[in-house]
Amino acid sequence: MRRLLLSRAQYLIVVGPAGSGKTTLAAAFGRWIEENQGLRVAYVNLDPGAESTPYRPDVDVRRWVTVQRVMKERGLGPNGALIASVDEVYARRGEVLEEIAGLGADFVIVDTPGQMELFLFHESGPAISRELAKLGAASALMLFDVSLARSPSHFATLRLMGLVAQLRLEVPAVVALSKGDLRGAERVGAWARSPHALLEDLKLEPGVVSELAGRLVEAMNEFSLAARIPVVSAVTGEGFRELYDILHEIWCACGDLT
Amino acid sequence: MRRLLLSRAQYLIVVGPAGSGKTTLAAAFGRWIEENQGLRVAYVNLDPGAESTPYRPDVDVRRWVTVQRVMKERGLGPNGALIASVDEVYARRGEVLEEIAGLGADFVIVDTPGQMELFLFHESGPAISRELAKLGAASALMLFDVSLARSPSHFATLRLMGLVAQLRLEVPAVVALSKGDLRGAERVGAWARSPHALLEDLKLEPGVVSELAGRLVEAMNEFSLAARIPVVSAVTGEGFRELYDILHEIWCACGDLT
Repeated sequence: MRRLLLSRAQYLIVVGPAGSGKTTLAAAFGRWIEENQGLRVAYVNLDPGAESTPYRPDVDVRRWVTVQRVMKERGLGPNGALIASVDEVYARRGEVLEEIAGLGADFVIVDTPGQMELFLFHESGPAISRELAKLGAASALMLFDVSLARSPSHFATLRLMGLVAQLRLEVPAVVALSKGDLRGAERVGAWARSPHALLEDLKLEPGVVSELAGRLVEAMNEFSLAARIPVVSAVTGEGFRELYDILHEIWCACGDLT
Repeated sequence: MRRLLLSRAQYLIVVGPAGSGKTTLAAAFGRWIEENQGLRVAYVNLDPGAESTPYRPDVDVRRWVTVQRVMKERGLGPNGALIASVDEVYARRGEVLEEIAGLGADFVIVDTPGQMELFLFHESGPAISRELAKLGAASALMLFDVSLARSPSHFATLRLMGLVAQLRLEVPAVVALSKGDLRGAERVGAWARSPHALLEDLKLEPGVVSELAGRLVEAMNEFSLAARIPVVSAVTGEGFRELYDILHEIWCACGDLT
C-alpha cells in the first residue's frame, strides 16, 4: 500500500569501492523490494566497465560506451580507459537521464561505476545525482565490505565516507556494510548498531587521530546523519528490512538535508 | 644541510583519485626536492596499471604484476583485473617492501594505484603504509584535482578525505590540490590558505549538511590536522616549497599522530 503514499519515483544510487558488492546487492535488494514491498523496481547500470550484471538493466550506459571499446579504439590502458569512458558517460548524461526519466517504476536502483571515485570524485556523479533528485526522491547507498571496518577508527572512516558522499552528491546518504554473512561481521555489529559503542572503543585507541575521529563521530551523531549502519547480505537478505526502513524514513521525513 | 638532521629515510605515499595527477606530481616534486634540498630521491611505483611514468622507478611493482597481464591471463575485464592485480601486489608485498628497504635514498616517493580506493579501501594500502612507517618517517600526500573543490562543501570533503587517509593508512596525511596552474584555482586559494574563510563560506551554504561540514572543519582545525592545503602545480612548481615545509614540519615535530 506504500506505493499509494509516494507520488514520485524513488532513486537509490548505489556507490562503493571496487569489490564492495554493489551490483550483487543492487540485484538482491531490488528483488527483495519487489517481493516484500510490492513496488515496481527498475535497474540502471551506469558502469561502462561492467562485465555482466545479475539484474536485467532497464537503462544501460553500455549502450553508449564500454571500457573495452574505449581501450581498443583509443589505445588506452585500463586506468586511462576507465576515466575516458566515464568522461563519455558524462558527455551523454542528457540521453541517459532522459531514459531514466521515462522509466515507469516506483523504485529505481542506480548502479554506479566499479570504482567509486569515478563517480564521487568526477563531475559525472554530482551532475547525475542532482538531476535524479529533480526527478524524484533520491538518496545514496554507500556500500563497504564489512572487512574494511576492522578497527574502531577504520569503522569511523566509513561513516565519514557516508558524509563525503552526501556532501558531494547532494542527496542523503546511508552507509551499509556488505557481505554481512562473512565471518567477522559480528564484531562490527556493535559499532553499527550503537554510535555510543563506537565512541567508547575509539577512546581505547591511542593517538590524537582516534580522538579526532571520536569528535567527528560525536558531531555526526548530533546531526543524526548516517547514525545507523545496517550490515547487509545479498546472500541471506540480512539487513534488507532495516536498510529499507532507513531509506523510507529519509524519503518520508527529510526536508532539506542537503 | 637538512640531510644531516635526518637519520632515516622519509617516505611520501602519494594517494589520490584517478586523474588527480599523482604520477606527474611525483616526478616533478621529486626533481624539485633533488634540486632544491640536495636530497637523494628514489621513486617507487605501486601501480600495476601504470602505462608509463615520467620518472624512472627504482622499485616497480610491474616487475611482478601488470593489469594487462592479469586481464589476458585470467580473462578478466578492466574492473576485475584492477582488483585482482592489487590483490597480487598485496600477496607479494614482502618482496616489494624488501626492495624499498634496500633503497639508499633520503627521500622516497611512493606512487600508488591509479584508483585511490584500491589503496585506501583495500588491505594492501594500510599494510604497506604500516611497514613504511617502520622503515622511516612516513606520511601520505592526498592529492585532488583543484576542480573538485568548486563549492565550500566540496572543498570540505577533500579535507575530510585527508582525515580518512590518515585514519586508514595510520600515517600523517597532507591534502594538496593539483593542477594549480589551471583556471579557477584562485577561487579555491582562499579556502586553502584559511580554514576560517572556508568556515565563513560554509555558513553561506544552505542546509544541515553544510552546517555539519562546518562543525567537522572546526574540529579538524582544533586538532590542527591537515589545516593547510597547498595548491600545487607540476607544471610551474607552484606550492612545492609550501608542501615541502609542511612535510618537514610533520616529520620533525610530530610525535604520535596516529
